[in-house]
Amino acid sequence: MDIKVYMQALGLQARAASRDISRAESGQKNQALLNIAESLAQHQAHLLSENQKDLAAGKLKGLDDASLDRLAITPKGVSAMIEGLKQVAALPDPVGEITGLHYRPSGIQVGQMRVPLGVIGIIYESRPNVTVDAAALCLKAGNACILRGGSEAIHSNQALAACITEGLKAAGLPETAVHIVATADRAAVGELITLKDYVDVIVPRGGKSLIARITAEATIPVLKHLDGICHVYIDDEADLDKAIHIAVNAKTHRYGVCNAMETLLVAEGIAAQVLPALAKIYLEKGVELRGCLKTGSLIPHCSRATEEDWHTEYLAPILSIKIVHDIDEAMAHIHQYSSSHTETIVTENYTRARRFLREVDSSSVMVNASTRFADGFEYGLGAEIGISTDKLHARGPVGLQGLTSLKFIVLGDGHIRQ
Amino acid sequence: MDIKVYMQALGLQARAASRDISRAESGQKNQALLNIAESLAQHQAHLLSENQKDLAAGKLKGLDDASLDRLAITPKGVSAMIEGLKQVAALPDPVGEITGLHYRPSGIQVGQMRVPLGVIGIIYESRPNVTVDAAALCLKAGNACILRGGSEAIHSNQALAACITEGLKAAGLPETAVHIVATADRAAVGELITLKDYVDVIVPRGGKSLIARITAEATIPVLKHLDGICHVYIDDEADLDKAIHIAVNAKTHRYGVCNAMETLLVAEGIAAQVLPALAKIYLEKGVELRGCLKTGSLIPHCSRATEEDWHTEYLAPILSIKIVHDIDEAMAHIHQYSSSHTETIVTENYTRARRFLREVDSSSVMVNASTRFADGFEYGLGAEIGISTDKLHARGPVGLQGLTSLKFIVLGDGHIRQ
Repeated sequence: MDIKVYMQALGLQARAASRDISRAESGQKNQALLNIAESLAQHQAHLLSENQKDLAAGKLKGLDDASLDRLAITPKGVSAMIEGLKQVAALPDPVGEITGLHYRPSGIQVGQMRVPLGVIGIIYESRPNVTVDAAALCLKAGNACILRGGSEAIHSNQALAACITEGLKAAGLPETAVHIVATADRAAVGELITLKDYVDVIVPRGGKSLIARITAEATIPVLKHLDGICHVYIDDEADLDKAIHIAVNAKTHRYGVCNAMETLLVAEGIAAQVLPALAKIYLEKGVELRGCLKTGSLIPHCSRATEEDWHTEYLAPILSIKIVHDIDEAMAHIHQYSSSHTETIVTENYTRARRFLREVDSSSVMVNASTRFADGFEYGLGAEIGISTDKLHARGPVGLQGLTSLKFIVLGDGHIRQ
Repeated sequence: MDIKVYMQALGLQARAASRDISRAESGQKNQALLNIAESLAQHQAHLLSENQKDLAAGKLKGLDDASLDRLAITPKGVSAMIEGLKQVAALPDPVGEITGLHYRPSGIQVGQMRVPLGVIGIIYESRPNVTVDAAALCLKAGNACILRGGSEAIHSNQALAACITEGLKAAGLPETAVHIVATADRAAVGELITLKDYVDVIVPRGGKSLIARITAEATIPVLKHLDGICHVYIDDEADLDKAIHIAVNAKTHRYGVCNAMETLLVAEGIAAQVLPALAKIYLEKGVELRGCLKTGSLIPHCSRATEEDWHTEYLAPILSIKIVHDIDEAMAHIHQYSSSHTETIVTENYTRARRFLREVDSSSVMVNASTRFADGFEYGLGAEIGISTDKLHARGPVGLQGLTSLKFIVLGDGHIRQ
């Protein structure tokens, strides 16, 4: 197979299908999503057996347990995909919504209509459930999509593709609206991210190195985040209980996620009250602590943090801690080291809460809440295709809205420009 | 001067200033705009004499009359800049606006806050008034900016820069928030569009070749439109008077603008009624007509349109005309040849108007109104920094909103993720 020719053909077909899917009625799109859910349920045995082929190949290739775990499709996993499809079907259709329609002095009415982006390219690693989640969000937002999953999940993804195709067909929608790249050849990624004439945006999901490479090489806009170096700042006017709850939850609720806290900043006025209590809990939970000099004097079992620690997303039970003079030093540290993902202030002080919200330049900024809330489901977006730490187009969790754009509409009655 | 070192220094300073300007209060930003207006009024004589240097150099270089006309600063032009500054000062401040704040089942409140983009790079050709207009919009939206005007306007732009600096200083804002590139060396453009670490978005204004080159070479996102191949479709259920008014206005109100009609599509059921009357008016106004075969049989003095005509933005008193079977053929033609700028349907038919609005994929889609309305002022945006025909971030006229982004904010009371 000539990969270039193959990917160009996918692009051309997806571009053509994007016109149909952009005009499809809400009911038809929802029906397709429910059809796909039904098809997954019907073909569950086949899905599991195809997945076994990938798992067997993965074991032969020497994949580690975590990778095999991500690759596995279980009956519970199929149920979760089905539930996800039903949830997306139940969300309001963003396409065609008209906002802000108002009369201008010239007599015309001007407003904006929400429209699909066109064709979305999604590149992800081993989890096959992303195939169904991403296809569902793209379809609901009226987009065609080209999905490129991990090469080690090729049999699983092709089995899922068959269910998606069946669901689209039964709803009378073009099956070319969702393409799942049918080759494990890694050259397909390089082609997909340069299909400028056919693909409107690329959403990479996976490790930092994958995303960095895609961003560097893509000639199409990329919606992404590289790092989640999230901070919690405990102000000296923090409520102690809230501070401890939030700092523990933000670090220990899950370690390997982008919205986990990596650095804790503590105002020096409250450090002696809060840090020993926190250190005890972290110790019990097996979290390794790396602190500044002052932190070390307050906590035993705390190694000295290096400059590199402030730059590091551990994705592990490790936490760096810095004692700062006040909110200004905290915000300066965040400005210097944050990856602009999510930051929280814990304080009862109104003025500092207001300043933190306004002045911290991250995709999510919180007061008295755990960074772990930075998530499309928690925000009520219904689902998320990813999280963006960039500023253009979409910031923070990206749901259906981020997969659409706004065009201007003008209603007149023979109006001409004077 | 080492251009690379110089541009890096501008970028670094603008990035630093962007933090201050992003936090500046509305009153302070407005004061700066009014100060700049006052400074322009005070230094008008100097502005005109510096502009004379550019005009004299331009004549020596053999610039044509149209170019010299764009380059000239007149007392009327200074008044227009002053008026523009006052209008931008009077607009509501977009920065910090919180929308959609609502309670989630978890107890947190989630909303979005409008925030500046950071540093905007603007590249434009000879008109010096863009210097003031663009700086005003960037400032109001809380952004720093780096402005790179035409090399032939270097004296004029430096004189305007002095007024802007004076106005910023008097308002207590960093003068480094607005940089006007102080070299005529064209290498500065190449540097500006690759200042990835310091510049968030590039807005090019000028001819298609400039914009195409910038888009191809930039490593920073570009907000732009290349072409304005705008269509008017006269449906067979159009009101004849409205159709003629709109078709004449859209073509002849101004010829050299991106929102002028370049191709007229007419339903065959109404062509014999509308085209001869229209052709008469176009003839009187000196508009050259190029039509399809059927058009030629209805209108004398109409040459045969070639395939190239449907692709051409004339920016001149030339119009291509095609008779189509119905709205479907009209929309297919638009889909194939439009530059996605602005299209209008003229019809009294409700269903066709509704379909056209939904299905035509352009940055502005209109019913019974002239394409000439596609403009930031006409839409009530206050002003525009440009028009985007892309879909990511901003589509259509880009005003203050397009120079901002939305971050998520979360308000809790010690909430943690369960």
